Amino acid sequence: MPKHKLVVQKYGGTSLATPARIEKVADRIISYIKRGYDIMTVVSAMGHTTDELIELARKINPYPSERELDMLISTGEQISSSLLAMALHKRKADAVSFTGVQVGILTDKYHTKARIIEIDASRIKKALRQNRIVVVAGFQGRTCDEDIATLGRGGSDLSAVALASVLKADVCEIYTDVEGIYTADPRVVKGARKLDCISFDEMLELASRGAQVMQTRAVEVAKKYNIPLHVRSSLSNKEGTIIMERKPSLEEPVVRGVTLTEREAKITVCQVPDKAGMAAKIFSELAASNLNIDMIVQNVSHKRITDISFTVGKDEAYASLATTKRVAKKIGAANVLYDEDIAKVSIVGIGMKAHSGVANAMFKALAKAKINIEMISTSEISISCVVRRKQGKSAARALHRAFGLGSS
Amino acid sequence: MPKHKLVVQKYGGTSLATPARIEKVADRIISYIKRGYDIMTVVSAMGHTTDELIELARKINPYPSERELDMLISTGEQISSSLLAMALHKRKADAVSFTGVQVGILTDKYHTKARIIEIDASRIKKALRQNRIVVVAGFQGRTCDEDIATLGRGGSDLSAVALASVLKADVCEIYTDVEGIYTADPRVVKGARKLDCISFDEMLELASRGAQVMQTRAVEVAKKYNIPLHVRSSLSNKEGTIIMERKPSLEEPVVRGVTLTEREAKITVCQVPDKAGMAAKIFSELAASNLNIDMIVQNVSHKRITDISFTVGKDEAYASLATTKRVAKKIGAANVLYDEDIAKVSIVGIGMKAHSGVANAMFKALAKAKINIEMISTSEISISCVVRRKQGKSAARALHRAFGLGSS
Repeated sequence: MPKHKLVVQKYGGTSLATPARIEKVADRIISYIKRGYDIMTVVSAMGHTTDELIELARKINPYPSERELDMLISTGEQISSSLLAMALHKRKADAVSFTGVQVGILTDKYHTKARIIEIDASRIKKALRQNRIVVVAGFQGRTCDEDIATLGRGGSDLSAVALASVLKADVCEIYTDVEGIYTADPRVVKGARKLDCISFDEMLELASRGAQVMQTRAVEVAKKYNIPLHVRSSLSNKEGTIIMERKPSLEEPVVRGVTLTEREAKITVCQVPDKAGMAAKIFSELAASNLNIDMIVQNVSHKRITDISFTVGKDEAYASLATTKRVAKKIGAANVLYDEDIAKVSIVGIGMKAHSGVANAMFKALAKAKINIEMISTSEISISCVVRRKQGKSAARALHRAFGLGSS
Repeated sequence: MPKHKLVVQKYGGTSLATPARIEKVADRIISYIKRGYDIMTVVSAMGHTTDELIELARKINPYPSERELDMLISTGEQISSSLLAMALHKRKADAVSFTGVQVGILTDKYHTKARIIEIDASRIKKALRQNRIVVVAGFQGRTCDEDIATLGRGGSDLSAVALASVLKADVCEIYTDVEGIYTADPRVVKGARKLDCISFDEMLELASRGAQVMQTRAVEVAKKYNIPLHVRSSLSNKEGTIIMERKPSLEEPVVRGVTLTEREAKITVCQVPDKAGMAAKIFSELAASNLNIDMIVQNVSHKRITDISFTVGKDEAYASLATTKRVAKKIGAANVLYDEDIAKVSIVGIGMKAHSGVANAMFKALAKAKINIEMISTSEISISCVVRRKQGKSAARALHRAFGLGSS
């Protein structure tokens, strides 16, 4: 018997929001089976289930323990996985659902944002050998203490990519409610254009700079194991965007996309004594609390004191601020400022570093739109600016226009 | 350190229907902790969650696989267990929730009505030794295949009693939305009276004859391991009904309660050849399909053929009918009749068998109320009659009155 091609498909919450949509997903899977593919599916929770469960928890305890939160919210994916299996059964297909625990996804103990340590995929492999369609509850695994742990926002992407790598899948399809990766968020920037193909690195930058189509960590794992991703819509049959290892062609525009995020807050430690190890002290304590810092800016010092600013996701802002205040006191800084009225706008493109003048063109475009830049941060393939929140959208539009991203 | 008394508490869906009620349950648990008890709690799903999940499943597949149904409905208890742990945390108590899988409840593979094979309670024992309040998701366990299995309607009662026996608990409290066990269903029979104490056997009969306060299997396990049960309301502090091993006192009325159920259907196999082994053939096939038969009646034969009737729970009627039709054909019976327009009314009392005339008094009371009896079945401590469904309630009232159960 020839080995079938294995396709891992991940369906997001919107694709599974109602019984009717779950049936549509089942139809799509059946169409793949008929074409001779083996299918392993990873599902998110239906619609806004996760948010609703968190809301329910907060009614009872505004600061629920993360271990218990994982116990609670992991049920969302368990529900949708069993329902999808039932929909497949109705279509006479042999399907079986598994929780993250059941498929042997072992994680560390950082509840609500656990990392995958290893996967024992023997149960999935056995089911696939038996020609069953495997439906896995995404977003979750188990710790070495046999507790349920979840993998952070968008964690079902990570489940899908990690399982695709362990199973050596031919492709990992990410079904979502948009048709692929765009040059900018089409809700913000009119004329944003779908990209046919993009490199892992560019996608990583787009994801970490605010494009919410895919979880950053999932893209990292896909890059590491070189699993091609196909981001596409579950509501149409159109081709989406392929994410894969690639070099930019000569003709290609240097800047591939613009992102905007309003989900970060800025924390500034004022008047830090300007001596060695101060930044290390602040950020090592934040890292020890497993808090993810994004941009960090420290400017030249005056009178042997300096300010250190950084941005952090709003959902971690409370914890970060508490930790920062504690460290600030310890190192003798004057005070800590908190500002969540910011937006971060970024341009991303793989050849950017090699082209001079990209940063300058960005600053010029923002200046022309009368937008003040508060922080700047650059990487190999992106440049980000923090601006006032209310100017974020017009900044994104100005950059999209300035780099000619709307025309293909 | 002196060993604390261990109380196992089971809270039903009504007691946990809203965040506010979950908080009330947490308050009650804390009051026990303050009085020096160790507490292990078993929880049902919030309100009507289980029914809602089944409803959701049927929208997608009218005949969902039982394995997938268990995957789906077990989430209800997982949700309430984590929420109760969060409510306890808010009250500064150290609490931890576990799923049935996590506490080592091993079951057989009869999904949706699995039986417990054994319990490895080491994880609970460890948590109790650490002075933690343990909150267990009821109604569920795992099979030897690592699948999730549920324990049938009212299965959280069974979880609680089984865990109480393994942990050698001092008492097992069953919190529900009624104040205890009544002489009859107070919604049907005006003047029904709460019993202070009742024997395991009487409770078993009441439960299996239709009193829906406790799961029959849970009472069986409690009797087997002699775990006293205290059925009481979570909405008040009143004492409920104690269920324990006991002999009736001389003064006690012979009949302790009247039950009514409309949840059964009657299946009749007509013109069965009257030779040895016919009944065995029918009921062995039903048993092989794990279908629970209740009353069985076979009357004397005429012309070497006979009719065999039995009753079965409505939720299993479809499967039972299919099996029965198959067997009927095999053994050469004429045809199979199905009737779900029936009600079963029973009287229960431990000393009944020793008192002559109880059955006669029952038939007389029904005759006086002009109620026709279609089937009769007796046990050591109960007599049941099947009547037309529309006469069920008046039959229960007539019997409650005839045996003087309303006056204490």
